[in-house]
Amino acid sequence: MGNSFGKLFRITTYGESHGQAIGVVIDGCPAGLEIDQETIQHQLDRRKPGQSRITTQRKESDEFQIVSGIFEGKSTGTPISMIIWNKDARSKDYSHIAEKFRPSHADFTYQEKYGIRDYRGGGRSSARETAARVAAGAIAMQLLKEHNIGISSYVSQVGSLKLELPYQQLDLNAIEDNIVRCPHRETAEAMIELIETTRKQGDSIGGVITGVLTGVPAGLGEPVFEKLHAQLGGAMLGINAVKGFEYGSGFEGVSMKGSQHNDEFERQGDRIVTKTNYSGGIQGGISNGQDIYFRVAFKPVATIMKDQQSIDQKGAPTVVKGRGRHDPCVVPRAVPIVDAMAALVLADSLLLNKSIRL
Amino acid sequence: MGNSFGKLFRITTYGESHGQAIGVVIDGCPAGLEIDQETIQHQLDRRKPGQSRITTQRKESDEFQIVSGIFEGKSTGTPISMIIWNKDARSKDYSHIAEKFRPSHADFTYQEKYGIRDYRGGGRSSARETAARVAAGAIAMQLLKEHNIGISSYVSQVGSLKLELPYQQLDLNAIEDNIVRCPHRETAEAMIELIETTRKQGDSIGGVITGVLTGVPAGLGEPVFEKLHAQLGGAMLGINAVKGFEYGSGFEGVSMKGSQHNDEFERQGDRIVTKTNYSGGIQGGISNGQDIYFRVAFKPVATIMKDQQSIDQKGAPTVVKGRGRHDPCVVPRAVPIVDAMAALVLADSLLLNKSIRL
Amino acid sequence: MGNSFGKLFRITTYGESHGQAIGVVIDGCPAGLEIDQETIQHQLDRRKPGQSRITTQRKESDEFQIVSGIFEGKSTGTPISMIIWNKDARSKDYSHIAEKFRPSHADFTYQEKYGIRDYRGGGRSSARETAARVAAGAIAMQLLKEHNIGISSYVSQVGSLKLELPYQQLDLNAIEDNIVRCPHRETAEAMIELIETTRKQGDSIGGVITGVLTGVPAGLGEPVFEKLHAQLGGAMLGINAVKGFEYGSGFEGVSMKGSQHNDEFERQGDRIVTKTNYSGGIQGGISNGQDIYFRVAFKPVATIMKDQQSIDQKGAPTVVKGRGRHDPCVVPRAVPIVDAMAALVLADSLLLNKSIRL
Amino acid sequence: MGNSFGKLFRITTYGESHGQAIGVVIDGCPAGLEIDQETIQHQLDRRKPGQSRITTQRKESDEFQIVSGIFEGKSTGTPISMIIWNKDARSKDYSHIAEKFRPSHADFTYQEKYGIRDYRGGGRSSARETAARVAAGAIAMQLLKEHNIGISSYVSQVGSLKLELPYQQLDLNAIEDNIVRCPHRETAEAMIELIETTRKQGDSIGGVITGVLTGVPAGLGEPVFEKLHAQLGGAMLGINAVKGFEYGSGFEGVSMKGSQHNDEFERQGDRIVTKTNYSGGIQGGISNGQDIYFRVAFKPVATIMKDQQSIDQKGAPTVVKGRGRHDPCVVPRAVPIVDAMAALVLADSLLLNKSIRL
Repeated sequence: MGNSFGKLFRITTYGESHGQAIGVVIDGCPAGLEIDQETIQHQLDRRKPGQSRITTQRKESDEFQIVSGIFEGKSTGTPISMIIWNKDARSKDYSHIAEKFRPSHADFTYQEKYGIRDYRGGGRSSARETAARVAAGAIAMQLLKEHNIGISSYVSQVGSLKLELPYQQLDLNAIEDNIVRCPHRETAEAMIELIETTRKQGDSIGGVITGVLTGVPAGLGEPVFEKLHAQLGGAMLGINAVKGFEYGSGFEGVSMKGSQHNDEFERQGDRIVTKTNYSGGIQGGISNGQDIYFRVAFKPVATIMKDQQSIDQKGAPTVVKGRGRHDPCVVPRAVPIVDAMAALVLADSLLLNKSIRL
Repeated sequence: MGNSFGKLFRITTYGESHGQAIGVVIDGCPAGLEIDQETIQHQLDRRKPGQSRITTQRKESDEFQIVSGIFEGKSTGTPISMIIWNKDARSKDYSHIAEKFRPSHADFTYQEKYGIRDYRGGGRSSARETAARVAAGAIAMQLLKEHNIGISSYVSQVGSLKLELPYQQLDLNAIEDNIVRCPHRETAEAMIELIETTRKQGDSIGGVITGVLTGVPAGLGEPVFEKLHAQLGGAMLGINAVKGFEYGSGFEGVSMKGSQHNDEFERQGDRIVTKTNYSGGIQGGISNGQDIYFRVAFKPVATIMKDQQSIDQKGAPTVVKGRGRHDPCVVPRAVPIVDAMAALVLADSLLLNKSIRL
Repeated sequence: MGNSFGKLFRITTYGESHGQAIGVVIDGCPAGLEIDQETIQHQLDRRKPGQSRITTQRKESDEFQIVSGIFEGKSTGTPISMIIWNKDARSKDYSHIAEKFRPSHADFTYQEKYGIRDYRGGGRSSARETAARVAAGAIAMQLLKEHNIGISSYVSQVGSLKLELPYQQLDLNAIEDNIVRCPHRETAEAMIELIETTRKQGDSIGGVITGVLTGVPAGLGEPVFEKLHAQLGGAMLGINAVKGFEYGSGFEGVSMKGSQHNDEFERQGDRIVTKTNYSGGIQGGISNGQDIYFRVAFKPVATIMKDQQSIDQKGAPTVVKGRGRHDPCVVPRAVPIVDAMAALVLADSLLLNKSIRL
Repeated sequence: MGNSFGKLFRITTYGESHGQAIGVVIDGCPAGLEIDQETIQHQLDRRKPGQSRITTQRKESDEFQIVSGIFEGKSTGTPISMIIWNKDARSKDYSHIAEKFRPSHADFTYQEKYGIRDYRGGGRSSARETAARVAAGAIAMQLLKEHNIGISSYVSQVGSLKLELPYQQLDLNAIEDNIVRCPHRETAEAMIELIETTRKQGDSIGGVITGVLTGVPAGLGEPVFEKLHAQLGGAMLGINAVKGFEYGSGFEGVSMKGSQHNDEFERQGDRIVTKTNYSGGIQGGISNGQDIYFRVAFKPVATIMKDQQSIDQKGAPTVVKGRGRHDPCVVPRAVPIVDAMAALVLADSLLLNKSIRL
């Protein structure tokens, strides 16, 4: 279980890292949406391996095939199925860890849970699965675009190197201007250097992605358990390697007084807006029409080119060392995944919201 | 929508702050569980208002009534319905804000979403709803106890006053020893003083709760979208006033190298354990048998005894000032809510896990 | 599990026949719906025991209490909770069968499934639970009324006494004109006599209810697994004592040729209609704008005032004989239940349909 | 929506009749199940077109490709994805009805619902979709086999030609002995002749399939809304062309007295059994350990080789006549579909039942 996401705009993904393919089925995409396949490929390209010198050098073209649900360029309301065939699946790279539990990977826990696991490249636990989400998210984005909702995620921290400027002071159109996907050039350059240094050490490092959602109308999100930020948080925490989520003032807001933190209302023409936005665009779990922003923490990639103590499936001590081609830092390629998960949450919320009033 | 939580151990809550009652229905509690009603009342008492000088002075006995699902002291497998009747519902306290949007409350967003709202005490958006979760969580805890799973949450930060000791160096049996629910006496005293000072200023302040789950067997959690930590995070973010969630190394782990962060495996007798636990007891979204620990950030309470600029329902400028009886800091009373949500997630995961192998 | 119904207009029921109360929570009723409490009570009265000489003489006023979700007479979009307290719960009537499995009741299967059961009056398996559905259904009906959708169910067969006239030739406003709820006076009188004779024999008898749904717009129902008739059928089969469901031409349609059975399209003014309606208003699982009609088969009530061979919980042979106050034929009181389940299906389909197009 | 089925053993199907492929994703198949691919192909072959002279002569090999979820011959607990590529998709056969609404097809209702439709061969509404369910059902069957549960469906009626013998007097191993899948040779021959005659007339005819489930343990099925027979009924009504479902005594049971219909309990060795089985193996919605049996009514196929009056998309009168290659009677090929849906319901119930007791 656990391979589906969303209630009305609902996706189900499948596939293993080194199996035949990964794929996704979207059930609930509204009919009549023009589907731009280039947008889908563009998002996949942003996530694909081998895209720059700071990502894994594994090569996957990550071309997708639409199998159903689109007719004469438009969604028909029936399930949209997309497949991405695995091409550069060098399973032999993994035979050396078939019987070993790699530290901080999912080898041990999958074995404990299921009593069986596809050890090739982490099987289902590999972040390769996220390509399927990115493809589905790209369709959700097209739905959101019809409602003038925008999604901009960017790398705001690598290791302890943190971009201190708030998103409002950045040019969010510059995210793709560099390979680390940080819209502040100087910081981006330092981040790239840090990642390269780390890679040369055979090591890995963590990072933070900041997400900004603009144009979200007031009223999205459901009370109590499905608050909009609870859905966003659950979605982000479902991305591989994520260790934390905060929105609006987040953990820093803890130290504030209510009198500082409260966002007073005022009018701007016809609209009711807030003077500040510590709420992060969500109050009581429902969007208030202001920008939604959040931060997602990613741990350092578990695969490193160093010897590590571990245990094998028979319980004997062993040594594990990464081979193959891995990312020293996951955040540059995780930006489109954060975008996709945000798009899926918003698309679902948007559809749910249609049934909420008489 | 959004008022249900869980897949197999599934709860649905209802009720408004100043309506007749709040309540919960649990569908899926296994049959044959002995239900200790004192445990339920104990958890409700930990959450109830008026329990100490640092909480709201509103009086609610929060006694619960079991309406169904329990026969001769045991669960029967049919829905367990529990009701908590509202007693001290002074609706008049709220008439002054019937037409005003209180800053950083849910007044505006509920109005925008539904076009109608029960303004009395925040209606459905009030944290009073969490009493229903606490009652349900207390039953989940009894199920977990049968599996020797323990849950201990405590206040680890109030404002910028932070308990730096990790949970391993604390006596988690001392959580109830003081009214702020911080198991470190000196820190607790400072926290209490800070909360009292804040209250006297008519202001409010945020805080952090740390949760520790012990005895969780390896194998809980579902891959991809329903990772155990994604479920925990989504659950915590669904609690009123929560702004962030992190588990294991969390946001701090971002700055670490993989070689530091990876948790090497070793044997301890029959068990495979990890030498460190930056993973926070979860790898690939599935529990690994180590302690699970996480932090939950709460913003300062929105209701303060100070004048604030706002807008009324007709769009005219107005001033809002809190009256009534409110908590200056939410975390002491939120500890049993965090416990409850953690219990609900684990109970559900435990049941789901029964179907996972042939 | 299994105590919830619907996806967007979702109800959860709870309560046992001789427990404290039965109740229902509706999550997803759109905000702004004026709730007429008399309509709810009217539907409950149609289902309540003791209403006529051909039903059980047990007395339950079946008054309901609204606990949440309605403010100033309108739904607020938050969960609507309704409770019906059990008043005439003579548990002692059932002590004689506490350890016995009544033939064709759920005693044995509940015991096998759960290892424990509330034997008083059948506990959760009692048809008393359906009062909760009727209350919820009455709210769904008010939503449907806003869309000019009508629901008329009536008794079309008791034992082998069958009303042969199709619904088009009946006055559906006459359903409440007699106690058996058959709109054809002569047939109704014969049915009443048959039921009374059966009751005097200490026996019971089955029946059929025909449902007619008018004004349903084209487009309701979801493809493949959630066809509108599959949802209606599943809903009806979930009513106690139901053994069969057919819609449109049903089982008789089997003997027809395609050339007879196909419903040709024609225009009537602006509308596209069908000349015949063997399809029963649903084609490919989606409503086509014509009347929807169906038949629901109810078995004879299992409780009879005769000696029957059985087994007790220890496995020893025993004799069971009904006591207490029971219906000799379930269909007169089941009419409002069929109405309610139909209303719940349509309300849910109507809401789901809002998200289906761009 | 509506393209998923099941709660724990959950399938999602996709694909159109004349698109690239149809497929299915199973989420929740327990890990460690040996998957026999021949069984899957065997079930697909039973459903495939062109298998005999009484089915459509369209040729589809219906070979399936497993894309994920199986490793070294066993299920891994991750989603199992299977694809069946469309090969003999002669879309040109359908161009003549692109703008016309075929009577009693889903053309009109899809157009009304979605505002767009893939008209080629009925698109998503085509029974071709059921191949995906058959593939998934074949895996469910392998799970059931581990629990010694058997499923046997057969054709019991074609037109008004009805096999009057109950299933107990038939040799259920003889179902595959003839092309109509009726285990009674003389009746089968008459059915075949009737179907052939009908086909020569360019017409179609309906039929009934009887399903028999053996070895189902007591305790399956959930109370109230998800009674085992409600799930079976909903599943069967979700199959194309189905108009009715009854189980146990069904519609005929209506005419019985309770004293005749009640199934008295008795002991047979260690087991508690019923002397009769009018209940059809289910009491109170939960299996009682006896055989489960039911009947499913199929209407005559809508596509016939005769002129029929209709309307085109612009609202103008038109004439429709079937071309292409169609089944004159759907039941012979529907037997494996009934088997598959029954298997999916039972597999899901079996998994759900694991969480029901402490």
